[in-house]
Amino acid sequence: MATQESASKAPYKVLGTRPIRHDGLDKVTGQARYGADINMPGLLYGRILRSPHAHAIIKSIDASYALALPGVKAVITSADLPLLSGRPVDVAEGAALNPKFLSNNVMAGDKALYKGHAVAAVAADSFHVAEQAISLIRVDYEVLPAVLDGKEAMKPGAPILHPKLYLSEGVFFRPGGLRDDDEDSAPSNVASHFELANGDTKQGFSEADVIVERDFHTKSVHQGYIEPHAATARWERDGRITIWDSSQGHFSMRDLTALVLDVPISQIKVIPMEVGGGFGGKLHIFIEPVAALLSKKAGRPVKITLTRAEEFEGTGPASGAHIHAKIGATKDGRITAAEATMVYEAGAFPGAPINLAVITVFGVYDINNTRVEAYDVVVNKPKCSPYRSPGGPPAGFAGETLIDELCEKLSIDPLEFRLINGAKEGTRRITGVPFPRVGFMETLQATKEHPHYRSKLDQSKQNGRNRGRGLATAVCANISGPSAAVINLNQDGTVSLVEGSPDLAGGRTAVAMQVAEVLSIPVADVHPSIGDTDSIGFTSFTAGSSATYKTGWASHEASIDLLNQLRQRAALVWDVSEEDVDWGDGEFFHKSDPELRLTIKDLAAQQNNTGGPVVGRAAGNWGGESPGFAVHIVDVEVDPETGKIEILRYTALQDPGTAVHPSYVEGQIQGGAVQGIGWAINEEYFFDDQGGMVNTSLLDYRMPTSKDLPMIDTQLVEVPNPGHPNGVRGVGEVSIIPPVPAIANAIYDAIGVRMTSLPMSPVAILEALWEKESGK
Amino acid sequence: MATQESASKAPYKVLGTRPIRHDGLDKVTGQARYGADINMPGLLYGRILRSPHAHAIIKSIDASYALALPGVKAVITSADLPLLSGRPVDVAEGAALNPKFLSNNVMAGDKALYKGHAVAAVAADSFHVAEQAISLIRVDYEVLPAVLDGKEAMKPGAPILHPKLYLSEGVFFRPGGLRDDDEDSAPSNVASHFELANGDTKQGFSEADVIVERDFHTKSVHQGYIEPHAATARWERDGRITIWDSSQGHFSMRDLTALVLDVPISQIKVIPMEVGGGFGGKLHIFIEPVAALLSKKAGRPVKITLTRAEEFEGTGPASGAHIHAKIGATKDGRITAAEATMVYEAGAFPGAPINLAVITVFGVYDINNTRVEAYDVVVNKPKCSPYRSPGGPPAGFAGETLIDELCEKLSIDPLEFRLINGAKEGTRRITGVPFPRVGFMETLQATKEHPHYRSKLDQSKQNGRNRGRGLATAVCANISGPSAAVINLNQDGTVSLVEGSPDLAGGRTAVAMQVAEVLSIPVADVHPSIGDTDSIGFTSFTAGSSATYKTGWASHEASIDLLNQLRQRAALVWDVSEEDVDWGDGEFFHKSDPELRLTIKDLAAQQNNTGGPVVGRAAGNWGGESPGFAVHIVDVEVDPETGKIEILRYTALQDPGTAVHPSYVEGQIQGGAVQGIGWAINEEYFFDDQGGMVNTSLLDYRMPTSKDLPMIDTQLVEVPNPGHPNGVRGVGEVSIIPPVPAIANAIYDAIGVRMTSLPMSPVAILEALWEKESGK
Repeated sequence: MATQESASKAPYKVLGTRPIRHDGLDKVTGQARYGADINMPGLLYGRILRSPHAHAIIKSIDASYALALPGVKAVITSADLPLLSGRPVDVAEGAALNPKFLSNNVMAGDKALYKGHAVAAVAADSFHVAEQAISLIRVDYEVLPAVLDGKEAMKPGAPILHPKLYLSEGVFFRPGGLRDDDEDSAPSNVASHFELANGDTKQGFSEADVIVERDFHTKSVHQGYIEPHAATARWERDGRITIWDSSQGHFSMRDLTALVLDVPISQIKVIPMEVGGGFGGKLHIFIEPVAALLSKKAGRPVKITLTRAEEFEGTGPASGAHIHAKIGATKDGRITAAEATMVYEAGAFPGAPINLAVITVFGVYDINNTRVEAYDVVVNKPKCSPYRSPGGPPAGFAGETLIDELCEKLSIDPLEFRLINGAKEGTRRITGVPFPRVGFMETLQATKEHPHYRSKLDQSKQNGRNRGRGLATAVCANISGPSAAVINLNQDGTVSLVEGSPDLAGGRTAVAMQVAEVLSIPVADVHPSIGDTDSIGFTSFTAGSSATYKTGWASHEASIDLLNQLRQRAALVWDVSEEDVDWGDGEFFHKSDPELRLTIKDLAAQQNNTGGPVVGRAAGNWGGESPGFAVHIVDVEVDPETGKIEILRYTALQDPGTAVHPSYVEGQIQGGAVQGIGWAINEEYFFDDQGGMVNTSLLDYRMPTSKDLPMIDTQLVEVPNPGHPNGVRGVGEVSIIPPVPAIANAIYDAIGVRMTSLPMSPVAILEALWEKESGK
Repeated sequence: MATQESASKAPYKVLGTRPIRHDGLDKVTGQARYGADINMPGLLYGRILRSPHAHAIIKSIDASYALALPGVKAVITSADLPLLSGRPVDVAEGAALNPKFLSNNVMAGDKALYKGHAVAAVAADSFHVAEQAISLIRVDYEVLPAVLDGKEAMKPGAPILHPKLYLSEGVFFRPGGLRDDDEDSAPSNVASHFELANGDTKQGFSEADVIVERDFHTKSVHQGYIEPHAATARWERDGRITIWDSSQGHFSMRDLTALVLDVPISQIKVIPMEVGGGFGGKLHIFIEPVAALLSKKAGRPVKITLTRAEEFEGTGPASGAHIHAKIGATKDGRITAAEATMVYEAGAFPGAPINLAVITVFGVYDINNTRVEAYDVVVNKPKCSPYRSPGGPPAGFAGETLIDELCEKLSIDPLEFRLINGAKEGTRRITGVPFPRVGFMETLQATKEHPHYRSKLDQSKQNGRNRGRGLATAVCANISGPSAAVINLNQDGTVSLVEGSPDLAGGRTAVAMQVAEVLSIPVADVHPSIGDTDSIGFTSFTAGSSATYKTGWASHEASIDLLNQLRQRAALVWDVSEEDVDWGDGEFFHKSDPELRLTIKDLAAQQNNTGGPVVGRAAGNWGGESPGFAVHIVDVEVDPETGKIEILRYTALQDPGTAVHPSYVEGQIQGGAVQGIGWAINEEYFFDDQGGMVNTSLLDYRMPTSKDLPMIDTQLVEVPNPGHPNGVRGVGEVSIIPPVPAIANAIYDAIGVRMTSLPMSPVAILEALWEKESGK
């Protein structure tokens, strides 16, 4: 993991160092407890029966044989979900989270909308009895024609998933809902359509010397976390529900489960377990309400752990997409206009990440004339879930491939082109919101100086193989959200930190470091823990590159709150006015009597005699954003005999703002790059002609492994975010976007074909080569 | 539980009501997790080898056979305790908690000092293998003469337990330590001796018309909690130690264990389990360091659960005592002087509760001339532990029996006598500290009006049986201490409360009610939980009648902190100045615009849009005290053929200050009275002539059960404590003191003999009757 760090460091003592993570030992010794590691007296095992059809009316369900099996304690169907049981529900039109859709994805109602859609569930004394029991449930289906492709689903006459789906036209950031019964518009699979534009693209294209334009297509891919979804629920007889859950946000899980179960949120306590990867895929509820309802019926706790096949078929992949994009530029390399039409597949229920896709496709450039329109289209596939920079890779694939083509046509170095057109502070985005201080120019400059970029790729053909180099860039703005932190001072001068952000990738330590920085104490003296939903203030999910940003901010403020109280204690000990006490170099001191000094350790030991325990706290909805830019360079070798692509060298440069823990930042960048490489050359859902996924294991669904790849080199270009007390930017997501276009551009460099569909698998490469050779 | 409540109620909405307890369902359905309910992968079971001798030199320990037994993973002896392994330790002279003594009680060093003293411990794959293994450990003892009685232990030539024990003379509240090697004072079993006095007792007795004087003797008795001590420890390879523990104070357990293990407190996390009774007996460490050291050696978690015999022989009973007391009064019933000499048995290490005994013996009276001296004496019995009103029952037995005798001699009604001499606000105690506002007079007045007191006891002899009535009074001042509370506001308007006081008897709800009172929300909308030592600010133990007092106070302040923040949010929502917003009737309102009203629920729903989550917190060392007075009346029947005493009717009146949850107050009073009845007529440690306890099961150690007793009637006489925001006083302890003298006085009323030794068992009654009949 040899990595260069930027020379100029802010004057931090703790931030920028690489301490051992607090949860490291637990994780390497197997003592950390993940979702499935729960056991308790009377525990039952839940299994879910899933639709074998991509689209079918459920005419009846007969669970009597299953219920008669010894050891079976409960069976539920959609009739047990309060919002699906015929009772009228007030579903606010266009609500961001439509509770009916949410419930319907948890358990199919009148229709199964994708193969793998949950239809019923069983709780039994053992996993095996539960497995046998679901095979005894008889479901009478009337199979309907299915539609799996977003473009096909938009065509007149396509099978309709939701007869009452209305189109949420022209509304930004709002997925569709259900139309009123008396509305007479034609049913459609388009849940949402909108357009963002600035300037005049017609005028812009007319000013262009060169215009490039292509269609792009990407498939459904899965987040591929190692730990499957696992949750255990216990529904007490007094209505309280406890859920042990591995997720990206236990407060979100609580709130969504409460919505679906139609109970108050405070009736549910979610206890967060360790998380074996999420990448956006552990933000939705799938099994929590099922386990809860089974527990209610059985009167015992119920654990559900999904199999890998269920993960693929029953949880959310990232959307497949069709994108048509067009960019024009002048001879001197200035972009004059860009436009794109994007169709994203939502899966069976509305909610594809088109809001993010539209800001990503040309997001790194300063363009005066832009128009992007997007469609959120339902298809008979699992409801999509966010996946690291949701909607980003297909959009980046389109935008950055076309830019590369433009550079080729204009004979401009791709890096120079971006130096000309790249976004800077003040550049107005397509949403109209200008960029704050960003580090794109610095990152491009660092790329220019990087040994990889400066090296010459040996493009001599070796054994007929072809080598090429590609470059691509991307931006992803982190989100923020509400977050809370409480800090208790121990008598030995250490502190315990309670926060609410599930730790996906070193979050505990990255947050604890921001406490240690304020308090001038060693990171090992901060003992972080993740409180359950009853033990810490509401904290929104660990997603959108937000946890180190927002919970770091909360912890920073809580540390200051602690310091302020300790200042009062120091004044009390010295019997002086609080104004006479200052803090510096890790000590309190008397402003005019330099002999009077007290460390936190000193005051900690005396706390119970100076007023009692000292507790710092902060909670806020921290807001702000801090887009992080990335530049990736990749060298590939294409074997023209097999179509296989080998990644020879890969370098990712990124502005993380202040790199709180550089190793974790590098790890995020490397992980994102590898997942992007998976999108690029390997991963896809294969469907049979009935709409069933056929590669539902990690043997058949091919994710890159360490054996497939060289070390991903990283370089951090730290441009602190002035909007965050520690200069932190979002880090985790952007690095998944550039690999796809960078590799496509490298392939073009190697073999002269522009790849426009994912994955760029050996077969696809060979077909493209044959097409090129056949002169088509 | 029919109980009268005082008619005048403070204007509370929540305090004084009787909501269902939050932990009730878990406890009645068996889902609450107590100390022994922990299980985890790789768990080992620990067993402790205990000395069969009351006093013996440990010449050698050979664990090789035990270690050779398959399934045995670790053996420890005192050599594994850092402070006992020969390494020099800085033991501060007279430190309140002598770490050497603490360690030595956990595991015997050179000598075993009582039968049941831990000598070695084993961790094995199962309880049974561990049990077999301890039988294979060979210990070579040199048996020494033992001394079990406090008075005997003070005599010259008595066996000496600690050759270096020095006498901590005249020091109030400080148990003895170890003398320096070069000191040449004679060794002694007296660890501490001191005297408190006011006025001139010689002069006082000279003014008396009547003087009564007697010797009293009480035996060791056990707290008798139902759940035995149980702790599980996991010592991680990086030095962190996690302990799941059932105790009265997980922070105390952490700190004491850290002291004995010689590690920083923050290296230990103690997770509190539910507690099946404590009564003072779960304040000491016994098994926590043992489980931790076994875990360290074995590299696996270790659980230790004591048997009932181990509870009796290896944990702390309450001290046995010898008391000589003397009281004088004038004919018109005014006490002129009182004095007492008290010898309390500490068990094997210093620390009998003589500091509390001396303030209890005449504590309810206003006496100008008093002198009390007390001795803390080590004997070859288990080290005493606190037990509900530590030191109180023997002291109350002496004082209140003599007062009854005085009343008889003076022919003054015992209630009238107390109305004359009873303590009031401003009465100077023997410590010199005057009483704050107390409710003794009100409680006496209520007794006078009580149907029980006004009823006439049928004293006609029935079948030769004799009936009598007795009355006794007592006071116990609660302690306080550091305590913290954090309150998180949920979006549905409920709150989660995190606090640090183990819940022994409804504490969660009593504290939650003080939150609900401030916030004007239902108690069910407060979700309390007890944070572990990493999750909440330092909170001292649940003991000394302090938890509802101090953690209630912290929670009250945290609620106000929450309200203050919500006031800011209301001002923000209305876009007005914070000063214009007021709070009343459970709503915020605009002072001059009555249309503007917002409930907590309204603001809770908006919190993330008005600045983020709202978290209230308070932490402090709350201080203060609020003595609670009790008056008990008992009617007994004595069977002169068998000596058996039947309790016919029992009434306990007490001033609890504001009765937060009257049912819990009544329960405390009833529980204390029943334990006091146990002291009075049943309970004692029987020793054989080698100093071994012979009645080590609950069949042989006879505690009263519901079949032995009538319903204990209670009456609460609420005199709010002006020193607490909710008027709370300590409640839990005082009711254990009056039963012993009240029953002794009733026996005198019934059969005309003054009982001066405990227990007043059938044999003792018969012997007293025979003595009376024989005219001795």
